[in-house]
Amino acid sequence: MNDMEKMSDFAIGVFDSGVGGLTTVKELNRILPNEDIIYFGDTARIPYGSRSKETILKYANEDINFLRQHGIKMIIAACGTVSSVINTKKLVDDIPFTGVLLPAVQAACSATVNGKIGVIGTQATIKSGSYGRAIKTIRPNTFVVGKACPLFVPLVENGYTDRGNKVARIVAEEYLEPIKNEGVDTLILGCTHYPLLKDIIADIMGEEVTLISPGEEAAKFANLCLLEQNLLNTSNKIGKNTFYVSDSVEMFEENAKQFLGHDVHGNVFKVDIN
Amino acid sequence: MNDMEKMSDFAIGVFDSGVGGLTTVKELNRILPNEDIIYFGDTARIPYGSRSKETILKYANEDINFLRQHGIKMIIAACGTVSSVINTKKLVDDIPFTGVLLPAVQAACSATVNGKIGVIGTQATIKSGSYGRAIKTIRPNTFVVGKACPLFVPLVENGYTDRGNKVARIVAEEYLEPIKNEGVDTLILGCTHYPLLKDIIADIMGEEVTLISPGEEAAKFANLCLLEQNLLNTSNKIGKNTFYVSDSVEMFEENAKQFLGHDVHGNVFKVDIN
Repeated sequence: MNDMEKMSDFAIGVFDSGVGGLTTVKELNRILPNEDIIYFGDTARIPYGSRSKETILKYANEDINFLRQHGIKMIIAACGTVSSVINTKKLVDDIPFTGVLLPAVQAACSATVNGKIGVIGTQATIKSGSYGRAIKTIRPNTFVVGKACPLFVPLVENGYTDRGNKVARIVAEEYLEPIKNEGVDTLILGCTHYPLLKDIIADIMGEEVTLISPGEEAAKFANLCLLEQNLLNTSNKIGKNTFYVSDSVEMFEENAKQFLGHDVHGNVFKVDIN
Repeated sequence: MNDMEKMSDFAIGVFDSGVGGLTTVKELNRILPNEDIIYFGDTARIPYGSRSKETILKYANEDINFLRQHGIKMIIAACGTVSSVINTKKLVDDIPFTGVLLPAVQAACSATVNGKIGVIGTQATIKSGSYGRAIKTIRPNTFVVGKACPLFVPLVENGYTDRGNKVARIVAEEYLEPIKNEGVDTLILGCTHYPLLKDIIADIMGEEVTLISPGEEAAKFANLCLLEQNLLNTSNKIGKNTFYVSDSVEMFEENAKQFLGHDVHGNVFKVDIN
């Protein structure tokens, strides 16, 4: 029996406090179509952003333990809050693991030419300064400007995402003008929901500004990790997504469609996490 | 010693899952300026709206027990979710008690002339149908039309409340047009945050539509209860507001200013509820 061969058939485990981590799942499906995904959305305890650091670490460990029960070969913390907090902590050391922060920071530091990077995110993410610290560790003389965009998550969750949506555009202009005026050439969409507003954000920032999506970068990083450790699924069949949530299945299914672009009905299961 | 005389000096206890209940406090301060108020905002466990009925009742009982430790003569559940769920349950029977739902329903049933009442609220409130059921109990042949306005809370919490705010107006028009088209003459603002958007809502609905604010109606009902039980504070000094929260004092202070119209710095204290 070849352990490695078996393990490569295992799924990639992804967790988030809610639906936002599905932007990572979407990118994993695109980049690694043959991989199975096990997703856990801790919807009963959302939002993590307003909890203490100790509570967030406790929840993250519980989420990881849940995923471990399902035969996984890698774990992605697809949650901006957890990724910020665990920046310096090692939560998993026996299988590949990543948050969404460091891959995005790495990509932004590679993309910038003029050394000016913008970061947008929730109030908690921007206040924590975690992106700025990570950027300055990798590329010390970078100018970093952050801006909280607290209305973006409710706008996305209520479907205000079309390029032509007037409300989303006015709000985005308000948030982004000050960052644009700083002359950044790279903008990190530091919240898993924001890629759904990418069209509007791109219009406002202009095509000379590179937009970095943490979900996409985490998926690319996962690809590299699995390749390096010879853990990529070599089968030719399309992988399966399975979703677990700690609160309403219906609410998750409704939101998931918007994030993934297709129906997940029948693949979502309710679990008790604590 | 006269027990009644002492008890009338006690405070009115008010609780909510967050800051929304402050619309009730504002009305209490206006109608009953000599009363002390003890407020508890369970900000660590917000939002209640997405929890199960059992959990909401458990939290409500814990909130009530907390208030009871502070010398109170009446309790107001200034939380739309708790008020909907407890509609048929008696949580307090030794001192006067009210939620925000029934006083608002009573006021709406008295105000309507054409028998058509609109209700706006969060997704959870509208889905529960609690306002509609209560209205039909009091006034059986009433036509009730409900509409969830999920973006109103984030708009209020981010300060998008001025009469001239373009974003709030476009969103409000989208939500309110269908209700207006039904010809209602009375509209219940079935979420404690919505009175902050009253100017915009009134402009859209037109002056022939009566707007009912649950916080205001709960304060009026409290006045009646205390008067009836001879528990009104007869002192001439202005009452004091004291606020307790289960999460960040700073975040609460920031939001409270918007709801109350004045600074509460120094009167907010952090407590551990569980």
